[in-house]
Amino acid sequence: MENAATLVLHPVHGSGLIESLGEYAHVSLVSPADTSDVGPSLRRSGALVTFAWDDDFLVPELRWVQAISAGFEQFPSEKLEQAGVILTTARGVHTPSVTEHALALIWALVRRLGPAIRRMGSREWKPEMSTELRQLKVAVLGVGSIGSEIASLLQALGVDVVGVNTSGKHQKLSRVVAQSELLSICREVDVIVCALPDDPDTRHVIDRAHLEALGGWVVNVGRGSTIDESALVRALESGVIRGAGLDVTEAEPLPEESALWEMENVIITPHTAWATDHLASRLAELIAHNARAFLGYGDWENRVI
Amino acid sequence: MENAATLVLHPVHGSGLIESLGEYAHVSLVSPADTSDVGPSLRRSGALVTFAWDDDFLVPELRWVQAISAGFEQFPSEKLEQAGVILTTARGVHTPSVTEHALALIWALVRRLGPAIRRMGSREWKPEMSTELRQLKVAVLGVGSIGSEIASLLQALGVDVVGVNTSGKHQKLSRVVAQSELLSICREVDVIVCALPDDPDTRHVIDRAHLEALGGWVVNVGRGSTIDESALVRALESGVIRGAGLDVTEAEPLPEESALWEMENVIITPHTAWATDHLASRLAELIAHNARAFLGYGDWENRVI
Repeated sequence: MENAATLVLHPVHGSGLIESLGEYAHVSLVSPADTSDVGPSLRRSGALVTFAWDDDFLVPELRWVQAISAGFEQFPSEKLEQAGVILTTARGVHTPSVTEHALALIWALVRRLGPAIRRMGSREWKPEMSTELRQLKVAVLGVGSIGSEIASLLQALGVDVVGVNTSGKHQKLSRVVAQSELLSICREVDVIVCALPDDPDTRHVIDRAHLEALGGWVVNVGRGSTIDESALVRALESGVIRGAGLDVTEAEPLPEESALWEMENVIITPHTAWATDHLASRLAELIAHNARAFLGYGDWENRVI
Repeated sequence: MENAATLVLHPVHGSGLIESLGEYAHVSLVSPADTSDVGPSLRRSGALVTFAWDDDFLVPELRWVQAISAGFEQFPSEKLEQAGVILTTARGVHTPSVTEHALALIWALVRRLGPAIRRMGSREWKPEMSTELRQLKVAVLGVGSIGSEIASLLQALGVDVVGVNTSGKHQKLSRVVAQSELLSICREVDVIVCALPDDPDTRHVIDRAHLEALGGWVVNVGRGSTIDESALVRALESGVIRGAGLDVTEAEPLPEESALWEMENVIITPHTAWATDHLASRLAELIAHNARAFLGYGDWENRVI
């Protein structure tokens, strides 16, 4: 390639993306400080990299929007389509980090690292028994990019895993059942890992009945809305389930008055499963790939419009 | 088999061993409450299951001692050998649980679950960046039963692993270097996992120079004596290394005055890597196997004398 694509980045993503994109010779960045300067910049470049939308961005010259998010509900899909603008998402970029976070949470719960860490404050050496992940059965609810990688890693460790999705079918995983069987799957497994997106169909997919059937541990690295949080608090308080690892909650930040903060068998991380120092280089690789398509070389990745 | 082996169990191991052994028809247990009753019981049975030795146990009828420990330094090897007593150990029985504990500690450190759990007490939702295990290099120091399984599991996860042992050779692992190269390995990797036994050669194998060369994280599931703990405390205090996960310490319980208790980037578990609810069934399986050999059917497992 002889030419370079000029991309307008706004707002600036603070985790090393500019530095990582600097390694690609065919990508040139413009980062206006003010939102009002984005439109004029786009009239020259035609390409926008962003996680936030403003209608002023829809200049006649706009040809491509690269979202820095896995979803694209914040973008005006219909308007973009009518204007012939290509929209690509960052789907998959968060998969390695969120997958590892889910595994870290499961293992920390099963090995009771939370109580051990809390006891350090009182300088207390108090041995207790825990259990072994490879003796447990795990269900992964939602087997998209993230869920299927969680299931694959668990399988590689020798854990008995079942995936759950709407169709009950999956190309890669050896055992997947339909969501209509979720209640009986909860009875069968020890751990449920939620990796579902937020949409009307996934709201409170895990409720009181599921928690009672489960009895074990719940991990959520998808969206907080998928678990009935009041039911979860009651199930934890009454010992109906053994613990929970939550990277997401129904309201974020989790309200100060939530009982979850003080529970010994709960681990809360503040929606940081995605946040690692390797995200920027994966995002830059994807953007650089799509910048090639923008220049007329090769195909688009993650194109949704 | 038509007959049953009567084994004298003393002291009683409090984690379900009696129940687990109950499932084997060819094993019958006697559990004297007093140590003084062990000798007379052994005169009838000839077989002892124990983790503690007393010279009164060496009755003429004693033919087999099954240790409930991986090592056997507490037993009078020479006397037993002279008396023609067979000694078998519990080597390998702790491998699955200790291996998982090591992985849980590594992942909790790398994903900064410790700081997240500590912040829960102040109901603080404070996102921060962490890193990804599969982007790191890990050295496993000591590749016996436990160390080699830790390395295998890391490999299955896609982590770049190198084993370190005295010979620099290993049957199963793809990359093993000699301990003489440990300092340069520390420069190369991000995480050191110690899985070494306690003996004169392993004392302070990891000292100040190794920690300075490492810069990353240390996990110890072997013996506390293998790491120079004063050097470790200084390396943690000064930020020379990023964190430590310790199931073992030089003195156990860890003294109340140790600075390790209060460090945000340290996870201490009170020598419980072995302690899971599946240990008893693995131990029972091993004992039942050796009880068959005692009865004259099949070979001994873990025979050291």
